[in-house]
Amino acid sequence: MALQADLQDKIIQAVADGFDDQIAFTQELVRMPSLRGHEHPIQDFVHRALQSRGYAMDRFYMDREAIAAHPGGSKFSDDHSDAPIVVGIHRPREEKGRSLILQSHLDVVPEGLHDMWSDAPFSARIEGDWMYGRGAGDMKAGAAANIFALDALRRIGLQPAATVYVQSVVEEESTGNGALQTFLQGYTADAVFIPEPEEEMLVRANTGVLWFQVQVRGVPVHVREMGEGANAIDGATRIMAVLREMEEDWNAEKGEHPHFEDEAHPINLNIGKIEGGDWASSVPSWCNIDCRVSIYPGRSADDAAREITERIAAFAQKDSFLSNNPPKVVFNGFHAEGYVLEPGTEAEAVLGRAHESAIGAPLESFMTAGYLDTRVYALYNKIPALCYGPKSRNIHGIDECVSLESVKRITAAMALFIAEWCGTEAADA
Amino acid sequence: MALQADLQDKIIQAVADGFDDQIAFTQELVRMPSLRGHEHPIQDFVHRALQSRGYAMDRFYMDREAIAAHPGGSKFSDDHSDAPIVVGIHRPREEKGRSLILQSHLDVVPEGLHDMWSDAPFSARIEGDWMYGRGAGDMKAGAAANIFALDALRRIGLQPAATVYVQSVVEEESTGNGALQTFLQGYTADAVFIPEPEEEMLVRANTGVLWFQVQVRGVPVHVREMGEGANAIDGATRIMAVLREMEEDWNAEKGEHPHFEDEAHPINLNIGKIEGGDWASSVPSWCNIDCRVSIYPGRSADDAAREITERIAAFAQKDSFLSNNPPKVVFNGFHAEGYVLEPGTEAEAVLGRAHESAIGAPLESFMTAGYLDTRVYALYNKIPALCYGPKSRNIHGIDECVSLESVKRITAAMALFIAEWCGTEAADA
Repeated sequence: MALQADLQDKIIQAVADGFDDQIAFTQELVRMPSLRGHEHPIQDFVHRALQSRGYAMDRFYMDREAIAAHPGGSKFSDDHSDAPIVVGIHRPREEKGRSLILQSHLDVVPEGLHDMWSDAPFSARIEGDWMYGRGAGDMKAGAAANIFALDALRRIGLQPAATVYVQSVVEEESTGNGALQTFLQGYTADAVFIPEPEEEMLVRANTGVLWFQVQVRGVPVHVREMGEGANAIDGATRIMAVLREMEEDWNAEKGEHPHFEDEAHPINLNIGKIEGGDWASSVPSWCNIDCRVSIYPGRSADDAAREITERIAAFAQKDSFLSNNPPKVVFNGFHAEGYVLEPGTEAEAVLGRAHESAIGAPLESFMTAGYLDTRVYALYNKIPALCYGPKSRNIHGIDECVSLESVKRITAAMALFIAEWCGTEAADA
Repeated sequence: MALQADLQDKIIQAVADGFDDQIAFTQELVRMPSLRGHEHPIQDFVHRALQSRGYAMDRFYMDREAIAAHPGGSKFSDDHSDAPIVVGIHRPREEKGRSLILQSHLDVVPEGLHDMWSDAPFSARIEGDWMYGRGAGDMKAGAAANIFALDALRRIGLQPAATVYVQSVVEEESTGNGALQTFLQGYTADAVFIPEPEEEMLVRANTGVLWFQVQVRGVPVHVREMGEGANAIDGATRIMAVLREMEEDWNAEKGEHPHFEDEAHPINLNIGKIEGGDWASSVPSWCNIDCRVSIYPGRSADDAAREITERIAAFAQKDSFLSNNPPKVVFNGFHAEGYVLEPGTEAEAVLGRAHESAIGAPLESFMTAGYLDTRVYALYNKIPALCYGPKSRNIHGIDECVSLESVKRITAAMALFIAEWCGTEAADA
């Protein structure tokens, strides 16, 4: 049931009244370089922030065996984070409304070459409407919005009339195992909301993602005898071409996949990292390439992994160098299936009203080709999984930034969504 | 004037008599991991070995300004070695014969992936006729042979009747600046002999070598927006193709270069090292490739460098990504011209007789496509530069090894060469 107009106005005003604090809180998050494996202090910071607000607290760790046994579990590598997962729990006096998970991740991707940034990558500098910094958009602004949307209701004497879990995870950028662990821990609700930087739109469909490393080894020799040896970097280059061919084949199938048929290039293969050889004057004996590829919803990660392995093996068999030095394919991260948010859920209808009240335009939806933790909730919790959040620029890139006016708008939409989805009751004293 | 037969026999026997010690000395050299920048202890070891034999000693360092100002000076990089150059000096009582430089280098190339080696890379293990280890062939066996060829003459009460400089340098594997510094320091003689692992043959012609790094930079983005950004690794791959095309063009000119026209592939371009990107899920913003290419004798390094830079720039102008992000070409090592040992020198005739006496077959010569320090002496000292040494396997590769029987043979040839070239006198007491 839609919120009354005066309550809507009060909620939007309450978000605005808390927004200076929300910006300052977001800056504190952005200033912490919470790269993979280094999320310990930021998760403790969020633990303190939630505990000080009176939420019941839970803190737990990845269960490697349980994750490895689950079909949605991604591969562990030596770089996998050991940082904890933090959950703040709101329970109403009377459980009248629909329960909700508000999730965010606080791990960030590497900042890249510092000299390409206009400023230090973790500066949290504000210029005009934009807050800059690695993770500002993806997704520290959203992590703060989860907390401040609830704060806004309290500011006007209200709290959700249903259980709300505020879940802060890690490993979203490399495996998605943090979100999966909340499911394995038993957390679920009537819906989940993840405010990733989605340009104020709702994610309708999302690809799965696979990470893998191709390892080429070969007999090295002196350059003067180059014909006798084999160049592992050249070998890796030929495998890159095989992978690009696979990417094109997968894109050519887009017509068979609803929500993807109108995308120019729904499947992206990224050769994200390469390392090979020791120095200029030795023929390189080794080369590793780190790749990331998306897969259509409905296709299992195992099936896609099998095709990748088989295509590389088939090419290697015909290649004079690689047939003697078969490359190894190691799956070392994301092993995640995509999902579709089927239209027509009540959760989407509630978000549509909240969005229209806060932003003044109908809610649009779109397909996105990156990994999203919402896949855990859609595929395994089997609950409506809403991914919706602020406008940003250059996430994963140089000079990443987030629009503060947009953050304010989506925080208002979130507060309105919570009020209608969960219902409200008078806040605890 | 050829040596008398009985003196020949005595010299060959003297080498054999000292050969166990020579093997042990060579093993001590091989066990020291004298990688670039880490040649300090091995140069001190050689200093002690020469000083204990009574040679006058000189030790000096690279003069960066003088090297930078010389046309044969290679580019300094942060990795350039600061280890000293060591010279042991023999002066006869009466300067009757022709003077000689015996040069070796004690820097070695990186060992590559250890798990590809049968044994530890610096083991100096002997199995049958072969001594294994990085640098065993290139050129610690030769460095020992310089010293033990002179020792063999002493064992029969003789010493050279002319000045002999035993020069131990570094930076042969990356710049050739060590040998150049001996020239800049003023060392010269009537001939130079460098016992590199040349399969018991004389090097007739040798290519020049250039090192360079191509640096590609580009705007990185989230993989979901891949079309907007650009992949620096893909950009580097396209530049690799441009360089391969240049390599083929240069090989097609081989008919114009005496001593190279019968070689199948005299010009080798090696993409020796590649590094790019930060991780799988970010479109890479940077990629560096380290390259090494050979050039025909007679072509200046500057001229070849200009062509490399221009070809890359011309390609980049037509490339949608690279035209906005022009790649940078940095020359960071070898900047060396090749040389030809013109037939007919007296030095070659003396080596021919020594070889035939020691090995029992006529001396053959050949073209080699790797850098050699003899270029300094051929081009700048303008003296006959003999590069000749033992049989080896897998230099710069995995399981590098040198044939001990071959080392014994070429040491005998060297001792015979010294005795005839320099003449002999009774050894100092």
